Amino acid sequence: MLSKNTVKFIKSLHQKKYRSEAERFFVEGEKSVVEVLNSDFLTELLLVTDDFQQKYPDLIRSYSGELLNVTRHQLEQVGLYQSNDSALAVVRMKANEAFVPDPKELVLALDEVRDPGNLGTIIRIADWFGISKLLFSPQTAEFYNPKVIQATMGSFTRVKFFYEDLEEALSRWQLPVYGAFLDGENIHSLANPLPGVIVMGNESKGISAEVEKWVSKKVTIPGFGKAESLNVAIATAILCDNFKRLLGS
Amino acid sequence: MLSKNTVKFIKSLHQKKYRSEAERFFVEGEKSVVEVLNSDFLTELLLVTDDFQQKYPDLIRSYSGELLNVTRHQLEQVGLYQSNDSALAVVRMKANEAFVPDPKELVLALDEVRDPGNLGTIIRIADWFGISKLLFSPQTAEFYNPKVIQATMGSFTRVKFFYEDLEEALSRWQLPVYGAFLDGENIHSLANPLPGVIVMGNESKGISAEVEKWVSKKVTIPGFGKAESLNVAIATAILCDNFKRLLGS
Repeated sequence: MLSKNTVKFIKSLHQKKYRSEAERFFVEGEKSVVEVLNSDFLTELLLVTDDFQQKYPDLIRSYSGELLNVTRHQLEQVGLYQSNDSALAVVRMKANEAFVPDPKELVLALDEVRDPGNLGTIIRIADWFGISKLLFSPQTAEFYNPKVIQATMGSFTRVKFFYEDLEEALSRWQLPVYGAFLDGENIHSLANPLPGVIVMGNESKGISAEVEKWVSKKVTIPGFGKAESLNVAIATAILCDNFKRLLGS
Repeated sequence: MLSKNTVKFIKSLHQKKYRSEAERFFVEGEKSVVEVLNSDFLTELLLVTDDFQQKYPDLIRSYSGELLNVTRHQLEQVGLYQSNDSALAVVRMKANEAFVPDPKELVLALDEVRDPGNLGTIIRIADWFGISKLLFSPQTAEFYNPKVIQATMGSFTRVKFFYEDLEEALSRWQLPVYGAFLDGENIHSLANPLPGVIVMGNESKGISAEVEKWVSKKVTIPGFGKAESLNVAIATAILCDNFKRLLGS
């Protein structure tokens, strides 16, 4: 039985304030719920339809938290999806723990990427390119925002992320730092880059002056038309693809 | 004076049916309106705030259609933007005219890209890479959908596009056809490609079997993680960037 209090609790998690207080967030839809159940995130409450339960018996069997059987209508009532005929999971947030980059791998750093859709798309891109460590400035969108989770298409389960002042992290790491600028070196012809940190800036302001000081190489995606810029997620994808090609990995 | 009939007319253009009947669409926001006024599209009705009028006196002077002075509130009432303190233009659609590709340039073809945001983003990407000719299958989202126009950030004014059955156009053109598949040749190491048509498929189904028959070379963006796929606009951007690099242009 889905109680009124549970409905109220899940709905409270739509808001950042209550997510932070409860240290819980929610995940909706078949693919994302399956991914979170198969991940190292701890799911504490799982709302499932009959269909979902019948489709994933092993997943349900190995799940040890609270399980509630619900209707499609109830899922749509508590979540944000207009249509959800499968499941919704309430999951415990991970602690904000610093990671240590491996000098042989790429790290992605975001300097105030504000739009949840952009952040989610960037997380999916990082996962595609096997970039598993992400550094976010404190003003970057919240990882656990349901729109971020949705846009990652399950990739949120496979990345390590850390919110910290970028200057502090970059000064500690002592790695090559590549920054996306409109007046940098052509990314197509960058000679023998080493792995390091790729920094992407805010949607309208780009990389801040404070973070720019830490950029050891400015890079640019060559444009051939009259569009003034590319969306930050699009630019991230193109730069990651070029770095993977240049690093021969 | 903004009459009730004009309000009703502009609001009718929110719907595809009425856009098609009227052969008109609308453009909102400072940047996009400035771009459309500077383009070869014919603007027939222009709603401007005092601020916009004072900021662009030359543009207003050279404009010969109907001009209405409105408030910010009125703009927000007739358009789709939650916040619009500048302008809205009602513009005449262009006829759906076939273009002839130049064998020295890239053409982008979309096989049923349904999401307006994706289509708009792809148009912006094409413009960035100087790809000015776009072929759309009849089931692709409508170019004049306000969400498409918005997502192009003004780039809609700089591309030629044509809706036609892709098989018919591809059979007529006799050009190399590159298709984005998950099992194609690594785009990083494609040897000496010639310019041609890059085909991108539907968000969930990919390229249709009918169109696949016309693909002369399947290409793939190498992935290194566990994400199953990339969003179609992201994949388009990465492929266009690689083709521009490989073609040395």
